[in-house]
Amino acid sequence: MTANQPKSANMKDVAALAGVSIATISRYLNGETNRMSKVTAAKVAAAIEKLNYVPNSSARQMITKSSKMIAVIVANIDDYFSSELFKGISSILESQGYIGVLFDADSDHAREQKLLEVIGRQVFDGLIIQPENDPQTIQQALRRQLPVVVVDREMDAGTWPQVVTDNYQIARQATQHFLDEGQTHVIVLTSDVHLARTRQERYRGILSVADNVDTIEVSETSYNHSAVYQQLKAALTRSTERTLVFALKERWFLEFIPDLINEGLLDGHQVTATGFADTDTARRLAPNTQLITQNPYLMGASAAELLLQELQDPKLDLSHQKLIQPAKFG
Amino acid sequence: MTANQPKSANMKDVAALAGVSIATISRYLNGETNRMSKVTAAKVAAAIEKLNYVPNSSARQMITKSSKMIAVIVANIDDYFSSELFKGISSILESQGYIGVLFDADSDHAREQKLLEVIGRQVFDGLIIQPENDPQTIQQALRRQLPVVVVDREMDAGTWPQVVTDNYQIARQATQHFLDEGQTHVIVLTSDVHLARTRQERYRGILSVADNVDTIEVSETSYNHSAVYQQLKAALTRSTERTLVFALKERWFLEFIPDLINEGLLDGHQVTATGFADTDTARRLAPNTQLITQNPYLMGASAAELLLQELQDPKLDLSHQKLIQPAKFG
Repeated sequence: MTANQPKSANMKDVAALAGVSIATISRYLNGETNRMSKVTAAKVAAAIEKLNYVPNSSARQMITKSSKMIAVIVANIDDYFSSELFKGISSILESQGYIGVLFDADSDHAREQKLLEVIGRQVFDGLIIQPENDPQTIQQALRRQLPVVVVDREMDAGTWPQVVTDNYQIARQATQHFLDEGQTHVIVLTSDVHLARTRQERYRGILSVADNVDTIEVSETSYNHSAVYQQLKAALTRSTERTLVFALKERWFLEFIPDLINEGLLDGHQVTATGFADTDTARRLAPNTQLITQNPYLMGASAAELLLQELQDPKLDLSHQKLIQPAKFG
Repeated sequence: MTANQPKSANMKDVAALAGVSIATISRYLNGETNRMSKVTAAKVAAAIEKLNYVPNSSARQMITKSSKMIAVIVANIDDYFSSELFKGISSILESQGYIGVLFDADSDHAREQKLLEVIGRQVFDGLIIQPENDPQTIQQALRRQLPVVVVDREMDAGTWPQVVTDNYQIARQATQHFLDEGQTHVIVLTSDVHLARTRQERYRGILSVADNVDTIEVSETSYNHSAVYQQLKAALTRSTERTLVFALKERWFLEFIPDLINEGLLDGHQVTATGFADTDTARRLAPNTQLITQNPYLMGASAAELLLQELQDPKLDLSHQKLIQPAKFG
């Protein structure tokens, strides 16, 4: 990279002239002037001007119009999973001088498309997406080539690199555990199964080992809490078998399990519960319950690493890369 | 506004030529082509081209380099309050053709400053901020004039318009309620009180009516759950008086109240609990507890309305405007 550049001042020259360390120059260039005295900042500025020093990253930015901003679209910022995912992404991006900028699809396909159109028109260097739509729709909405990494929702390989959980395996493993314990009936609490591949995989995992499965689908956007709870209660009351209530998403665990606990319906024998749950709240609510925990922070960090690899070497083809971050049950 | 413009085609002309409604033209201009047939979209495109129609917003954008993106910095996206705030902001912005773009300060003053520097350099039309820093620091980090609205954290009037809750009043009212019921001792669970004005106001509200107050401060970034819980339990055990545990923030309610419930320590008489809590989870956890609920969605919507007013008429001085959205107790 430096081979073709004319001989010019480098960071070391600037540091020598200003009489400060290279680390200080680096801080100055990253805008962290609050971490040095005003005198030091002025010295660095003078040295940069005198030597006509252009930092590599700025030079690259001038050529490519890089904004150093990465767009991140999550499914719904109300979910702890999505916000932790973003925190993981941000931590890695920022260590490399990028900033993660968050967009909320609000669990809405059409909204995600609209956001993609905006992102396509604006100066983002890349996109990390927990997608609602399929790859074709996403690419069409973007209208330009942009490095993309997909996270959490599995897609057919070959379009973009992706980071996912082993949804099928872990749902199967958890269900098998409760079947071994003697539960023979499963009630699944889920958002519309057809709308997200993640849910389909989890659902398939349950069905692969359990025969007697009831499903209660709850709309993400509008639902009547007490009507859904009555439906759940009716399914429990009807059942003569030992039942497992399986929440495919933490939100439904937090919404409906407290009611069961308060009414004394969750005895851990006749009726027990599990689910995907990433916050400690779910565990504290029902301390004797075994849950499935993912690691959204780590998934986000891995996605950001993949994107940075693509940005650093645009010729790299990572489109078949699929990282699987195992979830934990227990 | 139209008085100075030369006579040219307007939306009505385009609709007439294309043979569709004005609403359809509007949808087309907002990129919502998925809400019409391809034939309709093609007709609209042809009419726009033939009449050489330039929508007002596009014309303005060409002149001012408006990006139609509004930066939103929230304190911490892990808090339901922050994510609902953003959803309220987005809903209003989008009704006017703007997009809200979310930045997460991660409860970190230095991080907020860094984000402000990025936002100042990029093409955002305005900023809505739930601030960690003081107005001077914020303005310095931005380095340019930008319409700003402050939300949730009260500032001295005169810098920017703000939307806040009546933190002092509602904390005082809730505390008084429990004093009237016979609790004489209050344990406050809070993040560092000195770091946010919101917390200070709430804390002042409690102290304004209660004499016997213990305070347990929990660090937002790193804390030992069981150590804090033991501290809470010790304070309860020591106390010979009837005690109210008051969580200044929902997170601490969700983190520590379930433990009290599970250990049978929250009997609603000797020990009772309240707090600021915006999700239904807190209520379902402890159905007989009276809580303080804010309306972050409405606060966000109000903040967005103020910002849009500023954008539509830059001469308007709203810097002394302070909207107070009352919280509810019960």
